[in-house]
Amino acid sequence: MAAAPFQPQDPHYERRVRSSFERQQAMKTIGAFLSEIEPGRVVIEMPFSQSLTQQHGFMHAGMIAAALDSACGYAASTLFPHDAGILTIEYKINLVAPGKGQLFRMEGVVIKPGRTITVVEGRAYAIDEGKEKLIATMTATEMTVTGRDDVKH
Amino acid sequence: MAAAPFQPQDPHYERRVRSSFERQQAMKTIGAFLSEIEPGRVVIEMPFSQSLTQQHGFMHAGMIAAALDSACGYAASTLFPHDAGILTIEYKINLVAPGKGQLFRMEGVVIKPGRTITVVEGRAYAIDEGKEKLIATMTATEMTVTGRDDVKH
Amino acid sequence: MAAAPFQPQDPHYERRVRSSFERQQAMKTIGAFLSEIEPGRVVIEMPFSQSLTQQHGFMHAGMIAAALDSACGYAASTLFPHDAGILTIEYKINLVAPGKGQLFRMEGVVIKPGRTITVVEGRAYAIDEGKEKLIATMTATEMTVTGRDDVKH
Amino acid sequence: MAAAPFQPQDPHYERRVRSSFERQQAMKTIGAFLSEIEPGRVVIEMPFSQSLTQQHGFMHAGMIAAALDSACGYAASTLFPHDAGILTIEYKINLVAPGKGQLFRMEGVVIKPGRTITVVEGRAYAIDEGKEKLIATMTATEMTVTGRDDVKH
Repeated sequence: MAAAPFQPQDPHYERRVRSSFERQQAMKTIGAFLSEIEPGRVVIEMPFSQSLTQQHGFMHAGMIAAALDSACGYAASTLFPHDAGILTIEYKINLVAPGKGQLFRMEGVVIKPGRTITVVEGRAYAIDEGKEKLIATMTATEMTVTGRDDVKH
Repeated sequence: MAAAPFQPQDPHYERRVRSSFERQQAMKTIGAFLSEIEPGRVVIEMPFSQSLTQQHGFMHAGMIAAALDSACGYAASTLFPHDAGILTIEYKINLVAPGKGQLFRMEGVVIKPGRTITVVEGRAYAIDEGKEKLIATMTATEMTVTGRDDVKH
Repeated sequence: MAAAPFQPQDPHYERRVRSSFERQQAMKTIGAFLSEIEPGRVVIEMPFSQSLTQQHGFMHAGMIAAALDSACGYAASTLFPHDAGILTIEYKINLVAPGKGQLFRMEGVVIKPGRTITVVEGRAYAIDEGKEKLIATMTATEMTVTGRDDVKH
Repeated sequence: MAAAPFQPQDPHYERRVRSSFERQQAMKTIGAFLSEIEPGRVVIEMPFSQSLTQQHGFMHAGMIAAALDSACGYAASTLFPHDAGILTIEYKINLVAPGKGQLFRMEGVVIKPGRTITVVEGRAYAIDEGKEKLIATMTATEMTVTGRDDVKH
């Protein structure tokens, strides 16, 4: 997916996203890292880990979903004002293939930005012996929140 | 939520669910454990952990979702034949409050069992200083799969 | 489903809901009518009509969904301030049985009210020769909107 | 959205889709018609009608959703074997703008075909004074069904 040519309101969106991501201990625990950040689009990658498997030894869908949810949230956040926080209202994920691979790539792309509500589409891919395969699709609804101390960046 | 009075096809459903859950390394990594199993209903619990937080120090929604997704899948699985595997086709989650608390309780309840497709409803609660609060709701669609070596229990 | 004991902010919520519903020409066209209104809960009914069928002669799922979506929206609306409008941000529906019957009952129940976001659960039932059967479940996310002329009641 | 280059299993997929659509009385009632059919992609159009409005005089989201759901289902159906029926298991729709316009275009595109489960993405557009605008996005899960008399084409 290519991001539409969005104009960020906050010129320091990348710094803001990186700083928020680094405070997410959960992303460290599952080995996820930011690999691409541009206005309206964020890619997170995560290597396979034995500690994150489901009962058949593949990557657990819940771990894929957690990283994909983050990619979607940060994709929305790139377009937010510098002082706005983000709330993920809901997301929906279709799991279309097992998490079989050595590396996983989660991409979030804004499809409809808005003052209050931003809709983001996500795709997760497994890279298995060099071949990339779609394993999940997501739609996420993100809300811009201002003036709340417990919801920032 | 109370489970409807479902009749399991496999008398050993509990053993089958426990054995599958124990093979999920991801559940160990996030500290989730099975707390209740009955026909059409499974509860998973997970204590707060600093290693699973989001950027404000609360429990990461992705970790809540992963455990809730597992509760929904296993709730469906209790009603499956002994030789059937399960595929989660999709789920949708609404996050209605932050993951603020010391313990989290994720409950999956079957609302429509079926030969091929089973629909499950999930609720996640945070227990914060003894007070339980709804933090997420889920709907999950599970598929019964037989005859595939890569999809079992 | 029983509605939680919600306290409406607008004592005239019922009049407001009825007045809005009556302006929905689409509801007239599909023969849907309001059958119950209480704080946080609305029921809409719709008789079978040959003009609303799918290819096998059953009630079209899209018509069921349209009425169920309305029931969910109005259930949220009962709890809104008198001057607030409503926007349905998204909904998700699982179709669990065909629309076979003479009458259809669509029920929306608020599960989490909020200042900005309200989450509602819906159930659709077919009444076929006196027997009621669950045919669809919905989760809908509704937003309270104030100060916009194009989004009222 | 461009459809991936899918190879249909049934060379007569277009005839099959048209014949099924024509039996949907609901589509006639809401004035929807098939405008494009190709492997893995179907477009349905629907003119504005006063009889299908919501409370502000715009096209009712439920009618948009019904036509979009049909576009998604038939997009999947183009790739099915000639004797297979289709069941829509679930769909999720995000409403991103009001249904303001003279003509509406609903497009369904398969993103993951499968033997049993096919995932389809939908987009609805309003054409308002010649300008096309995205008003809704959908993800639909469709199931291939064989050997059931009540679920055909």
